[in-house]
Amino acid sequence: MASFPEPITNLIESLSRLPGVGKKTAQRFALFLIKEGSDILSEFSSSLDEVRDRISYCSVCNNFSDSELCNVCSDDNRDKSILCVCEKPSDIILMEKAGYNGLYHVIGGLISPIDNINPEDLFIDSLIERSNDVSEIILATNASVEGDATALYISNLLDSSSVTVSRLARGMPMGGSIEYIDETTLQKSISDRVVI
Amino acid sequence: MASFPEPITNLIESLSRLPGVGKKTAQRFALFLIKEGSDILSEFSSSLDEVRDRISYCSVCNNFSDSELCNVCSDDNRDKSILCVCEKPSDIILMEKAGYNGLYHVIGGLISPIDNINPEDLFIDSLIERSNDVSEIILATNASVEGDATALYISNLLDSSSVTVSRLARGMPMGGSIEYIDETTLQKSISDRVVI
Repeated sequence: MASFPEPITNLIESLSRLPGVGKKTAQRFALFLIKEGSDILSEFSSSLDEVRDRISYCSVCNNFSDSELCNVCSDDNRDKSILCVCEKPSDIILMEKAGYNGLYHVIGGLISPIDNINPEDLFIDSLIERSNDVSEIILATNASVEGDATALYISNLLDSSSVTVSRLARGMPMGGSIEYIDETTLQKSISDRVVI
Repeated sequence: MASFPEPITNLIESLSRLPGVGKKTAQRFALFLIKEGSDILSEFSSSLDEVRDRISYCSVCNNFSDSELCNVCSDDNRDKSILCVCEKPSDIILMEKAGYNGLYHVIGGLISPIDNINPEDLFIDSLIERSNDVSEIILATNASVEGDATALYISNLLDSSSVTVSRLARGMPMGGSIEYIDETTLQKSISDRVVI
């Protein structure tokens, strides 16, 4: 039985490793790329090479960076008195979109003994070192068991320091309807209610 | 506002050109690839380069090929008396899976005046030339207006030749239920009924 020539099969194989992409979708992607011609193949392959060769992590905050210091750490117009702790570099983009203008520290994961991720696997030591240079640390971890455990662990470590430690508010999402919100979130919204 | 370093933005741009992939999915793909490390980036980029450099079209049947003749045309164990006309190279894989073992001819599209695709844009001349070497030509175009128009156009051109021209049967798909089948297909199934 004839099949695709080897280079096409290999490309389908590569594409099917993308998350949520099965064999059929990968084949559709590969045939699309071949149909579009060699320009798009070259462009695609060089953008992969560029990421491989140029992207590393900021030596201060572990954000993605194409130089020693990332865009944020090397920017003099940021509020350097406040530091936001994120699980992963992509969380920074979300905080930026929300208008945050301070510094960041990416810890590279969340404490999760079941997945064998312990505090020493994360960039927590370097966070503690940096805590002396700021007046507030915002823990922007997920509102999950792992996120809360990690936030609690970090805030305990910072207990004796003079830095203010905060975490993101929990409650009803904007535009949310009381009718459809889950019980735990509603409980949290009640206990954290704000005087107006 | 800080954003991803340029190489990552470019990779997201490239990935978002894949069919059905939006900005969010492209970002998810890019972050996945970065997280997986440089090996997967290299492998992916070289599989794209390989396709660009090695894949062309068979000089006889226009199938994908990494040499002058494709897998099928260079295979001596195929039935060379029968030729199947396909719209695009990927259709060949489907015919192969269905057990067909003859030759192919890819015409590269379907006649569609509304999309400005005319017979002279397709590989029909080379098909007519090859028709003298076979005893049967199967027109395996889609059961659509364009597919039927193309099949009709080709069968008219072959009217004066001695070759048998056939097209794929239409009717109920295997496992299909009469209750849910569309009217036109059922009409076709009735008029093309087979004596048992």
